[in-house]
Amino acid sequence: SESSMFVARHRFILKTCGTTTPLQCLKPLMLLVEQYAGFDEVEDVFYSRKNFKRPDLQMSPHQAFEQEVALLDTFFKDGAAYCLGTVNHDCWYLYTLNPLEGENNKQPYQEPDQTLEILMSDLDLEVMSIFTREESSSAAEATQKSGIEKLIPNMKIDDFLFEPCGYSMNGISKNGCYMTIHITPEPDFSYVSFESNVPQASYKDVISRVLETFHPGKFVLTVFANKTSPAAEFPRELEKTPAFGDWLRHDIQYCRFKNYDLTYAFYSKFPS
Amino acid sequence: SESSMFVARHRFILKTCGTTTPLQCLKPLMLLVEQYAGFDEVEDVFYSRKNFKRPDLQMSPHQAFEQEVALLDTFFKDGAAYCLGTVNHDCWYLYTLNPLEGENNKQPYQEPDQTLEILMSDLDLEVMSIFTREESSSAAEATQKSGIEKLIPNMKIDDFLFEPCGYSMNGISKNGCYMTIHITPEPDFSYVSFESNVPQASYKDVISRVLETFHPGKFVLTVFANKTSPAAEFPRELEKTPAFGDWLRHDIQYCRFKNYDLTYAFYSKFPS
Repeated sequence: SESSMFVARHRFILKTCGTTTPLQCLKPLMLLVEQYAGFDEVEDVFYSRKNFKRPDLQMSPHQAFEQEVALLDTFFKDGAAYCLGTVNHDCWYLYTLNPLEGENNKQPYQEPDQTLEILMSDLDLEVMSIFTREESSSAAEATQKSGIEKLIPNMKIDDFLFEPCGYSMNGISKNGCYMTIHITPEPDFSYVSFESNVPQASYKDVISRVLETFHPGKFVLTVFANKTSPAAEFPRELEKTPAFGDWLRHDIQYCRFKNYDLTYAFYSKFPS
Repeated sequence: SESSMFVARHRFILKTCGTTTPLQCLKPLMLLVEQYAGFDEVEDVFYSRKNFKRPDLQMSPHQAFEQEVALLDTFFKDGAAYCLGTVNHDCWYLYTLNPLEGENNKQPYQEPDQTLEILMSDLDLEVMSIFTREESSSAAEATQKSGIEKLIPNMKIDDFLFEPCGYSMNGISKNGCYMTIHITPEPDFSYVSFESNVPQASYKDVISRVLETFHPGKFVLTVFANKTSPAAEFPRELEKTPAFGDWLRHDIQYCRFKNYDLTYAFYSKFPS
């Protein structure tokens, strides 16, 4: 499917693209969760996206981050909205819960958790052509030819190749980790998103493999990791990484939230 | 004067408040600098402000950060615009130059440089009353009664008490450091800004003295420091400071720029 949905015991992940309106599902989703799973409280929320190339083509409330935030604020008391990166060039929006940490509000032990996202634009045309019906006769062929199957080993892959072009895949490993890739191959607005929660002390190798697979002109990198995650020290390593091969870093920012540390970085080929 | 202006050999600092339009001075300022000092290139720019309480009362281009950025982008090629903190609550805008660091673009040695800013809101009414003509007969009296004169020692102070209320001061030390404080004491929109470039390995004592002097309900803290600054390690210390007395931290963010590391933090009294 064009969108991805992962349902775990305490977590629900929804990833969409195009002109879908994912925030409109919040109310029915919370009702369904209460009805079928018995949960009546939202522990945390992460709504994020890159700035749109053409926000005017979106439907309400997705035409402006301020509109999205206003809707989210009607549901959540402690919502905090951030803009990472440059407002006037490439940036990434995030809405999460960030209640004030009082003395009586110490967090209990958290299960290790981490998320890596790589949001790539201006991709290599030859690589992108793999994700068309003209070049690949099936999703499996595109997955194999592009090298996606080697990005993270031992994933059970569900992939889909669209007509006439476009691709998405979801992968799940035996230990419950996921990866998901969505590809818009059209040259005028090529875009590839990669996301995974595989636990690793360093994501440098995964990131390098993803970059060598897709050859983006520029990309946003985000890493969420909580204190018990093996990736907790990766931000320090990334700080000392001003370049991945030909991709030079423009921006790096860190945010500390209640449970998670977030690292945002933006790289592009020189000259951009 | 209500505004502050510091002119140094390679730097010009302008600080204004109310509904002034400081960005409108850019063009004439650059012409004057070229005419009188012979400099025809801008090495770096830092335009920053807290989000306004009533942006609609501002004059163009200060009604929205996007407008300000659009104007700045007409002057500078490598301008990067950031929003630190929460878009939907308290945030701080910054426009600076952030050219891509290529291999042939290594920065030469930089003189140590640092700037501390503390932007305070919802201040203690009794403290604020000091900055009215009713309570203080002169600026010097307000400076002494409030304890401002003890915040950073050995400053030559030029202070001003407005009619019927309001206060501002500029201080310069023998070694060329400055401090500047601007106070809006009206209870409905009380605001105090503190800024200084005194070099210190830790600003914890200065920050604590400023907080004890003004008793804000909430404040934004920003620290710029370059690699050769004695304050270069202060961000790590601040990271381990989730509270200053009763003021608890909501947010902390770090950005690395070409020459400077920036730390942004937001604290408020609990409950906020």
